[in-house]
Parts: sequence; C-alpha cells; structure tokens
Amino acid sequence: MTAVIRKISRREQIQAKATTLFREKGYSASSMRHLADHIGMEAASLYNHISSKEELLREICFSVAASYIQQLNEVEQSNVSASEQVDRLIRFQVRMMIEQFEKVYVSNRDWKHLKEPYLGDFLTKRRNYEKRFAIIIEKAIAKGEFKKMNAYVAVLAMLSAVRGIEFWHKNKKNVSALQLENDMTDMLINGLKS
Amino acid sequence: MTAVIRKISRREQIQAKATTLFREKGYSASSMRHLADHIGMEAASLYNHISSKEELLREICFSVAASYIQQLNEVEQSNVSASEQVDRLIRFQVRMMIEQFEKVYVSNRDWKHLKEPYLGDFLTKRRNYEKRFAIIIEKAIAKGEFKKMNAYVAVLAMLSAVRGIEFWHKNKKNVSALQLENDMTDMLINGLKS
Repeated sequence: MTAVIRKISRREQIQAKATTLFREKGYSASSMRHLADHIGMEAASLYNHISSKEELLREICFSVAASYIQQLNEVEQSNVSASEQVDRLIRFQVRMMIEQFEKVYVSNRDWKHLKEPYLGDFLTKRRNYEKRFAIIIEKAIAKGEFKKMNAYVAVLAMLSAVRGIEFWHKNKKNVSALQLENDMTDMLINGLKS
Repeated sequence: MTAVIRKISRREQIQAKATTLFREKGYSASSMRHLADHIGMEAASLYNHISSKEELLREICFSVAASYIQQLNEVEQSNVSASEQVDRLIRFQVRMMIEQFEKVYVSNRDWKHLKEPYLGDFLTKRRNYEKRFAIIIEKAIAKGEFKKMNAYVAVLAMLSAVRGIEFWHKNKKNVSALQLENDMTDMLINGLKS
C-alpha cells in the first residue's frame, strides 16, 4: 500500500484558520489583522495569498452550498422512494452540522455579508435548494408516503431544527453525535409520515 | 354593557416602539437617540420614563419568559396525557412566534446583552424551562405515548423548528398563520409518537 499524502497548501491553512476565526468572533468583527495574528503571519504577507476577507467568506459559503447541491443532485437521481430521498437529505444536513460545523455555521450566519454578484448567486442557490427539497416532499405526499401538509412548512421546520444543532455544539449534554444524528433524523421523518 | 377602556401609558408606548426598533436594527445598533427619534420625543424627556436601553430589553426578555413559564405551569397542572401536554406546549410556542413575533424574536436574539444579575436569572429560567419540557417528554416516552429517543434532542429540534418561524415572517409564501400553526405542531408531535 502506498499512502497518498497531499500537502495542505498555505492557502488551505489560511482558509481553515479564517473559518475558525469567523465562527468565534463573527465575520464583521474579524479583521485581516486578527486573521494574520491568528495564523502567526504578517498582515502584508497575507495579501500574497488572498485579496480580501470577503474572498474567504465566499469560499466558505460557496463550498457549503456546493456540498448540499451535489448531494441533492445525487438524491434526485437515485431510484429510492421520495420519503427515502427526504431521509437522505435530512441525514446529510444533520451530518454536515455535526462534522463540518464551523463552515456551515459561518455560512448560515454570515452569508448576508457577501457582496454582489455573489450575494444574489448565493441566495438563488439557497432558494433553489429549498424549492427542490419541497418538490420531493410534495411527491412523497402525492404518493401517500407522507401526510398532507404544506411542503414549505415542512422544509422550514426541518432546516430550522437541523440548524439548532449549533446549540448541541455549545452544550453537548452527554448526547453522542450518532444518537443526535439518528434521533433527529428519525423524529423529523416520522413527523411527516402518514 | 360598559366598555372597559384602559389608557395605554406613555411607558407602554415607549416599550412597544423600542421592541420594533430592536427587532429592525438589533439591540446593539439601537441607541437612546434612535429610540427618541422613532417615538418623536426629545432624548432628554425619554429619561423621565426609563433609565436605560437595557431596562427596555429586560422588560422584553422577562415578559416573554414569564408567558412561557406561566403556560408551562398550567400545562403541568392539567390532567391531560403527557403527549397532549407536549402538544399544548408546542402549539403555544408556535402561536407566540406568530402573534408576538417582535418580542419573542428580540428576546431570542438579544438576551445575551442583558447585564448581571439579570443575565444569570434569564439563563436559569430558560434552562429550567427546557428541563421541565424534557421531563414531560420523558414521561410520555415512559408511558409508551412517544417513541424512545433522547429527550434533549427532541426539545432541541422542537424549539429550533419553532424559532425558524422568523423566516416565515420575512417571506410569508402564501401560507396562512393557521396552516403554519397546525402543520408545524402536527409534524413535531407526530415525529415523537410511537
């Protein structure tokens, strides 16, 4: 066996440190100087790697959006039932909130600081994700797999419940990540079933 | 019939205007001068009615907390099943988010700006509410009314889903308040049922 070792680039290190800084301090309160201090680098050298703080935020928001959209594409193209598709979507969202918390949290909270045309692009991506999610729920309702209800309310409740996992991170309360994933996914899916 | 007309006091008018201002601008970004302008009053006269911006925030946070606690007391003392108690708690929370949105939203977002000893008092009240809510869920699980799951995860998912109603306010999407109330309550309760 040969181990494939990829060197983490300086750019990626900066990105990771910026994500932690934005999560802790908030994007607005974080300056390039804070970031330079956080990395242990001169602020001037930082500009050799990135052009602005917003470039780092963009990278966070669009990489999170890309992960969600890729999984949605895969789910839509799968041959499983609509209710199983919803299960996979929720479980993925829960896992993202558990395993990639910093990125998802910063993206959820700080996307509003993106500048145009990125802001509009990001919002369109988010709206489209929610619409396609609602369409899958409507299919499951039409097939009698789910109870009759407004699909927008279902999407709102599910995305908001998953987002609440940020409080679990602050206060883990003896609940393991696996139990959180299973219990939350089951509860949300069970809530829709007929 | 005699109509009982209560005159709304100047103090109550100030409180209502402050709630709207805090909801729109955020508590941190709102100054006493903004509030005076918003009311159409000299900043100096405002101090005849209230001593500080924080006094207004305190009034918002503790009046919301008092409503939740009063309803929880009533529910706990009722003779209905544990699952029906959870139904009543959720339905009340959903209605508060719909009908008293500004107060609940400001309380949810800005409580962190309370000063001690109020901050500690508020957090204790919130923790106790969540614990008592979890105990009712545990009772319903023990009686077989609800599926086995971690009660903390159930409370987290429900409170977060209800909190997501803030997005409905921004974007009502042809969903009526009544449909939102019924669909969200049913979905969350159904999610717990065995």
